[in-house]
Amino acid sequence: MTSRMLEEALSAPQVVARQLAADQDAYARLGQALRDKPPTGLLTIARGSSDHAAHYMAYLVMARLGRLVTSLPMSLITLYHSQIESRGLVSLAFSQSGQSPDLVSPTRYFREAGARTVAFVNAAGSPLADAAEHVFALHAGPEQSVAATKSYIAQLLAGARVVAAWQGDEDLAAALQQLPQAMERAAALRWDAAVDALVGADKLFVIGRGTSLPIALEAALKFKETCGIQAEAFSGAEVKHGPMALVEEGYPLLVFAPRGPAQAGLLALAEEMRGRGARVLLAAPEGTPGAELQLACTGNEDLDPIAAVQSFYPMVEALARARGLNPDQPRHLAKVTKTH
Amino acid sequence: MTSRMLEEALSAPQVVARQLAADQDAYARLGQALRDKPPTGLLTIARGSSDHAAHYMAYLVMARLGRLVTSLPMSLITLYHSQIESRGLVSLAFSQSGQSPDLVSPTRYFREAGARTVAFVNAAGSPLADAAEHVFALHAGPEQSVAATKSYIAQLLAGARVVAAWQGDEDLAAALQQLPQAMERAAALRWDAAVDALVGADKLFVIGRGTSLPIALEAALKFKETCGIQAEAFSGAEVKHGPMALVEEGYPLLVFAPRGPAQAGLLALAEEMRGRGARVLLAAPEGTPGAELQLACTGNEDLDPIAAVQSFYPMVEALARARGLNPDQPRHLAKVTKTH
Repeated sequence: MTSRMLEEALSAPQVVARQLAADQDAYARLGQALRDKPPTGLLTIARGSSDHAAHYMAYLVMARLGRLVTSLPMSLITLYHSQIESRGLVSLAFSQSGQSPDLVSPTRYFREAGARTVAFVNAAGSPLADAAEHVFALHAGPEQSVAATKSYIAQLLAGARVVAAWQGDEDLAAALQQLPQAMERAAALRWDAAVDALVGADKLFVIGRGTSLPIALEAALKFKETCGIQAEAFSGAEVKHGPMALVEEGYPLLVFAPRGPAQAGLLALAEEMRGRGARVLLAAPEGTPGAELQLACTGNEDLDPIAAVQSFYPMVEALARARGLNPDQPRHLAKVTKTH
Repeated sequence: MTSRMLEEALSAPQVVARQLAADQDAYARLGQALRDKPPTGLLTIARGSSDHAAHYMAYLVMARLGRLVTSLPMSLITLYHSQIESRGLVSLAFSQSGQSPDLVSPTRYFREAGARTVAFVNAAGSPLADAAEHVFALHAGPEQSVAATKSYIAQLLAGARVVAAWQGDEDLAAALQQLPQAMERAAALRWDAAVDALVGADKLFVIGRGTSLPIALEAALKFKETCGIQAEAFSGAEVKHGPMALVEEGYPLLVFAPRGPAQAGLLALAEEMRGRGARVLLAAPEGTPGAELQLACTGNEDLDPIAAVQSFYPMVEALARARGLNPDQPRHLAKVTKTH
């Protein structure tokens, strides 16, 4: 038995290759424009999985380019009709379908108010693509599974491409070109231990930090959508400020600890939680002590989170089936959600 | 039987009165300085309950003053050593204890890099108070309960006072002066229906939107800390993008629907979820159809969320006791959490 979700997730390495082969000039032009006239601030406009991809790009922009990025509460525009001072801003909207009014309306607002507007959209000819000044196709191909997979990965990639072009970072650009191979390796990794550990779970925490927090957010959403597990994501620091009251004997945690400055703290947290009796599933590069789930390494540690979610998707799909659910039919959800 | 948590929560109306009687000139001076030289951007630095208070201030600043506010991932400074472009920025740190290095270190960074730095701190003479240029005491008095209550309310108030002073909004300023009376009314409201409904719950969602989302975030954390319930907060729009796969027959939701532009959508969501069989606890002003839990109204609808959490705290404390837990002794938590 297979599912559309699994097919689409496993096609992501080809999606990455296809997107990398396209629009190189457009990314370079946007990068040049951002260098020539740096934004005074940036904001992201997105919901659900797309919003997690927006967080990844935001973190890279703040870490590598030193510019603050705000995650826009869309209700500011759609309900409160706020007059946001927009001169010098760059807005970044992320969407698979490009249909939801609460992405279109803020993008229109910022464009009319003088900001530079960018949209990353999978569906061509969508209202969001019409609204934005600069539009980047995700090249993920039609996505039919309600639970987004390949479009999320395509959004992570698009965000990293903008950052590489803006920063003019040759190392990151070279690592991006090698990403399809790393994604193939990541897709082949077996996370069966997680399926076994979580087949009876109804609650869990997913932990990341820095560039891996957006992957933890995405994983938590997928656990909810496809497995009916109430999973919540926290940063490795935030979880200590209250949430860990829930962590008792046998409580499951999935910890994403890819390479990078946040890794040491995440490994220490995993150890601490194990000491408390929690069922810790530690995802880390091969050779990391205590890691049951292997993470593939890419050509640049800032891209490792993209490979991490590639390894996660087949696991969560298998987990849904092991729990007797059809991953292609999440309860109560439609592929296109329109909110205001 | 009573608890420190309940005593402190019920003392919040006096805390509000005490804080309002103090530092009026200092708030006015900061407001004038922000008018004279508007920030190019703002950022908040906070964790846990304090971070939820930061979100409330951020929403008010964006809605009323049209300036973007970024919630800073502290790891950018403490782990990734990012060089954030800081000219023209205003940083806003929120903390009860003022002890955690990951608040102090970013505040120092931004101050040295030329930003204006503000801290809202309860504990005088703390490292955070030393680090910031402008320090506002919360005047909550010693807080001994691990689960913050009065210090959270004092932070919401401090944020609203900055906004009123910055905007020079006489109506909001007048409503602030009447807030202690509204808080007394809010503290007297009985939310017994919620205790009865949630005594056996182990999962739930808390929903808000706009200015009430920060209260939903805080309520979800309190359910975790004091009751061991895995509660997660969502905006009324975000919950439709995936999380509602979990909402089945009898699934509990607490919906905060105070007055304001977001109220209509929240009421419609409550109705929709009831139609699906969920156990919806709707908190709304007296007379709202379908509201089991009453919200007190203040002199300005943007302050209503502060009264909402005042009504929530005694309920969650009673719920903890009804579940056989001691609200003063959350598992695994210390009053002061130091993270890097």
